[in-house]
Amino acid sequence: MKTLHVELGDRRYPIHIGPGLLGRSELLRPHIPGRQALVVSNTTVAPLYLEQTRAALAGLRHEAVILPDGEQYKTLATLDAVFAALLRHRFDRDCTIMALGGGVIGDMAGFAAACYQRGVHFIQIPTTLLAQVDSSVGGKTAVNHPLGKNMIGAFHQPRCVLADTDTLATLPDRELSAGLAEVIKYGLIRDLPFLEWLETNLDALLARETGALSEAIERSCASKAEIVAADERETGERALLNLGHTFGHAIETGAGYGVWLHGEAVAAGMVLAADLSARLGWLSGDQVERIRVLLGRAHLPLAPPPDLSADDFLRLMAVDKKVQDGRLRLILLRGLGQGVIAGDIDPIRLRETLEARR
Amino acid sequence: MKTLHVELGDRRYPIHIGPGLLGRSELLRPHIPGRQALVVSNTTVAPLYLEQTRAALAGLRHEAVILPDGEQYKTLATLDAVFAALLRHRFDRDCTIMALGGGVIGDMAGFAAACYQRGVHFIQIPTTLLAQVDSSVGGKTAVNHPLGKNMIGAFHQPRCVLADTDTLATLPDRELSAGLAEVIKYGLIRDLPFLEWLETNLDALLARETGALSEAIERSCASKAEIVAADERETGERALLNLGHTFGHAIETGAGYGVWLHGEAVAAGMVLAADLSARLGWLSGDQVERIRVLLGRAHLPLAPPPDLSADDFLRLMAVDKKVQDGRLRLILLRGLGQGVIAGDIDPIRLRETLEARR
Repeated sequence: MKTLHVELGDRRYPIHIGPGLLGRSELLRPHIPGRQALVVSNTTVAPLYLEQTRAALAGLRHEAVILPDGEQYKTLATLDAVFAALLRHRFDRDCTIMALGGGVIGDMAGFAAACYQRGVHFIQIPTTLLAQVDSSVGGKTAVNHPLGKNMIGAFHQPRCVLADTDTLATLPDRELSAGLAEVIKYGLIRDLPFLEWLETNLDALLARETGALSEAIERSCASKAEIVAADERETGERALLNLGHTFGHAIETGAGYGVWLHGEAVAAGMVLAADLSARLGWLSGDQVERIRVLLGRAHLPLAPPPDLSADDFLRLMAVDKKVQDGRLRLILLRGLGQGVIAGDIDPIRLRETLEARR
Repeated sequence: MKTLHVELGDRRYPIHIGPGLLGRSELLRPHIPGRQALVVSNTTVAPLYLEQTRAALAGLRHEAVILPDGEQYKTLATLDAVFAALLRHRFDRDCTIMALGGGVIGDMAGFAAACYQRGVHFIQIPTTLLAQVDSSVGGKTAVNHPLGKNMIGAFHQPRCVLADTDTLATLPDRELSAGLAEVIKYGLIRDLPFLEWLETNLDALLARETGALSEAIERSCASKAEIVAADERETGERALLNLGHTFGHAIETGAGYGVWLHGEAVAAGMVLAADLSARLGWLSGDQVERIRVLLGRAHLPLAPPPDLSADDFLRLMAVDKKVQDGRLRLILLRGLGQGVIAGDIDPIRLRETLEARR
């Protein structure tokens, strides 16, 4: 097991990464201050890992809520089921909510923890690669609105993240690939050596070799932890983590929640960001191609859905959280391993990018 | 105009109290950092004061959302209308949400501000006595759940509170009385001289004499600001502000949201708290009577609805936010002007109180 920390003063918390962590009660218990714990999971993950998770809670009052599986359920309405369970079981302000699942479960359980009785304790047990390398770390929680993704949420840090790499054994191939999109993102925005490592080790990752997966998760979490510690509320450099996300959110909202996986939309979004960066003279054609090749090897989509027009994109991106004063901010690349926050995008180049996608 | 401050470090904010404040753009503008403002109001208040409020926003992009009036609408579902308006108008992360109305509007607009894009700016313009003396100050926001009042919410401080005493001219008598319940509360928990002042000046308050109302609002806000500055997140003495509220929430939930006004339920709850305090030997019968007389003069109910049994109360109170480890904590009185947090309530005395109510 490897342990990293997110350094947030008195809200500092550990990320444990490794095999066989689910059943290890001694890793969880120090982070459950009260005597009540609610595990929030979904219909796919619960049959696989809920029993093991609850076994680690012996001696506490523990309950579970099983939500339907999918981004299309990441809504205020679904959240109500979590609140109803908490109230029916008379859970108090000292209870702990635990997310057992992927990014959707983490986002919803975390937002429920942020709001229930104005804030209760929270633990992340991510079971997908995407959640282990990205969404479980950093305290962003949210639900979607029909008019925009992740528009309703809160910053609410977990007390502990438990990334059990054994859970990746049951992950569908498509979700493994979606997670790799976020892994590749860290290489692109800030870590050229990691990008090169990924080019060398991608086949091992696709073959789910434990050593390669653990290394990829550790290096990704180390990046994320460093960025979050420096900029918890995303007033500056944390925005770099959104490479491909503004385009990606437009794809997710435009295609209908649940049709594209988040990581897939981010992959296509990163290709658009790379293309735009090239049009601005910041990346060479070869560098864009290198990004496309790597994402393609990871079986990720390289272009948005053909029926999403440039106008659709511009309309959907106008409600992105990175819009300020009506001006779009995008994360682009000034080179491989060099993400930048670009605040004054040339609208002509942007439209060219949106119209040229293959 | 009188100005107090809630001292919360770099989140310090002013409370302006006085007549003719609504139109005064110079009081609002320094607290609106961006260029977009959304006024949230209701069908009762908007026709009276929305135009004046929006006039003070000239030069900004300002929009309004008008919600139905009443505690029964303080729900996640109603909140969705606020989020939809924000998204339809493409409001960004630097926008400001302004609550124009009573406590329900303040709670909902504040919670929307806490959650929209994970937190935007917030201003309180309370137009009821209750909101001016209590709910607009201190950053508690929430919506109700069918299973419990204020169970879903956040701490989110406003950047400014504008209490225009002119708006009290249009307040229904019943709501004036409800506000007086919270005013009297400050006297009971921490300010015997103020309680005596209220006994002397209650008729002037009921007659809506401007000087008396201003003085009552100032002294109430000064108490609230002091308590909030010392204990923002209610880990200690802030709980004193909940005198009568655990009983009161049970009345509100039990009777059905919107049937009792919050202040009315708090009044009946304070009588129950006083009665229980007397049964524990902490208050004399005369002191309880003195409280009943003052609340009665303010035209407030002195007993809960007769069809709410002691068992109903105990069941409803078991989900209160002040429950910890299954044990109920209540705010009681050790004397007039001396609130205490009582954590180990004798269940026999509690049941006697609930059964003896007149």
